[in-house]
Amino acid sequence: MAARPGFHVGRDQWHLAWDKTIPPVLTVGSGDEVSFDALDASNGQITASSRTPDLAALAFDQVDQVAGPIHVDGAMPGDTLQVELLSFEPGDWGWTANLPGFGLLADDFPDAYLRITPLADGIGELLPGVRIPLAPFCGELGVAPSGEPRSTIPPDVTGGNMDTRHLTAGATLWLPVQVPGALFSLGDGHAAQGDGEVCGTAIETPMRATVRLSVRRDVTVTAPEFRTPGPIGTSTNTAGWLAADGVGPDLFVAARDAVRRMIDRLGAELGVAPLDAYLLLSVAGDLRISEVVDQPNWIVTSYCPLSIFGDA
Amino acid sequence: MAARPGFHVGRDQWHLAWDKTIPPVLTVGSGDEVSFDALDASNGQITASSRTPDLAALAFDQVDQVAGPIHVDGAMPGDTLQVELLSFEPGDWGWTANLPGFGLLADDFPDAYLRITPLADGIGELLPGVRIPLAPFCGELGVAPSGEPRSTIPPDVTGGNMDTRHLTAGATLWLPVQVPGALFSLGDGHAAQGDGEVCGTAIETPMRATVRLSVRRDVTVTAPEFRTPGPIGTSTNTAGWLAADGVGPDLFVAARDAVRRMIDRLGAELGVAPLDAYLLLSVAGDLRISEVVDQPNWIVTSYCPLSIFGDA
Repeated sequence: MAARPGFHVGRDQWHLAWDKTIPPVLTVGSGDEVSFDALDASNGQITASSRTPDLAALAFDQVDQVAGPIHVDGAMPGDTLQVELLSFEPGDWGWTANLPGFGLLADDFPDAYLRITPLADGIGELLPGVRIPLAPFCGELGVAPSGEPRSTIPPDVTGGNMDTRHLTAGATLWLPVQVPGALFSLGDGHAAQGDGEVCGTAIETPMRATVRLSVRRDVTVTAPEFRTPGPIGTSTNTAGWLAADGVGPDLFVAARDAVRRMIDRLGAELGVAPLDAYLLLSVAGDLRISEVVDQPNWIVTSYCPLSIFGDA
Repeated sequence: MAARPGFHVGRDQWHLAWDKTIPPVLTVGSGDEVSFDALDASNGQITASSRTPDLAALAFDQVDQVAGPIHVDGAMPGDTLQVELLSFEPGDWGWTANLPGFGLLADDFPDAYLRITPLADGIGELLPGVRIPLAPFCGELGVAPSGEPRSTIPPDVTGGNMDTRHLTAGATLWLPVQVPGALFSLGDGHAAQGDGEVCGTAIETPMRATVRLSVRRDVTVTAPEFRTPGPIGTSTNTAGWLAADGVGPDLFVAARDAVRRMIDRLGAELGVAPLDAYLLLSVAGDLRISEVVDQPNWIVTSYCPLSIFGDA
């Protein structure tokens, strides 16, 4: 319906570091819309016909590429880049994997494992009968840092691999500009993900995205902040939840314990195999800090929505 | 409407430690309902007419009392105590305080501060125009541990001060039984609280509660687990949210940073004073682990619901 945006970044216009010296692929004005056609986070190495053995050939130095960078005219260090997330359109398939050495429970799950999920009618059936409502977004949204180049895998105060599930269409993100032109990029399409992304992957998918980039001098941020247009997480919050607590003085250890025990619970209650449960929690479970004040013990709770199991 | 439960614990039947040697106030059978009339977590020291200077006289060795303990016939170590949360009825007032030395940002907020909030029609107006929907629950729900007595302030794998906001009426909680009879107690009425309870207090209130206690040998838990009867957190999830990220290798530091920056944001956007914002996030904001896999940096996000600001 709307006019096609005049600015477009193609799937071949990607880079592998947040680096202020990478030349921009586009220069736009403040307030311009930009559309992207981005490959999935494997940079096209995983396809709809890939299977677990194919993970052995995955070149990790090619993953989590981001499309861009885009120079926004007038953006200067100290300004804020406003990124209005206008639309996300996932592909018709996605992948979810356990990659050895990666993920919250890497010690527990040493073996590679890949699932391909067809995506249709707003649903991804991750496991037989387990229907995940899609809520697409980009895991990577960021600007170039003023300092040394850095990997696209860890996020930082300039954004990057934030993997924040509530940054769906309609949300407005604010990022701190550290270099002239901001140098914005995005990537890492996720068709669905839970808070935490515990196994390290979401339902990873190619993504068409449209954003509006604007320079704001009346908003100051030192790390990512955002505003959602309405209620969050509603797609999986339509029925009851199972929950397991991790209790102790270290939030990371508590998070691991909570997820481990939810994996056990899904096995006991619903017969889900451990590795399947781990992936399922990564794409549809949530990780909340229930309390962080009753010293010395904090509680992290792993929540799994029952709505995805249909009649379960 | 229902017949009044036959078992009742009064507001004078409390104790201050999780301790298997404390004699039970009641013995009930598996499947019995028990009603409680419990004072707030200050054990009645704070009243609807208290003001900030009164906090100086607060005797901390009398707080977070729990009502009970209740011996459940037949419960043995290794069993699971099922606690069906049937009803929670808060008082007509509540308190929220910054207590020096306590809370996620204790360093930032050294001064005592008390707010009394009238509770009526399912709403607590914490600040002028800031209407918090009530979602009452008990912060303390636990059983006696097999080991040494311990304080009621930190939670543990046997439950206790879990301060978990989604344990509202209709939820079913499972706790690991460690001593004969389980020795269940509850307390710490909260009219409303966000994930994290960041300032250390919720809207604290006297609470009338009813639970059904049952011994389960077909369910095994090693720490608290629960099931909610329907969608969670819906009372504040009716409009958009503001969100601020804490980014870094330590989840606790990231949580502090996220809350600090959300306090700043509430000041910049809505003119909320810092201490008011801290209390507001404790009773209505949420703390989620957005990602915990993109090493070395994790993201904790502080979310504040915009619905509580009315037309804001």
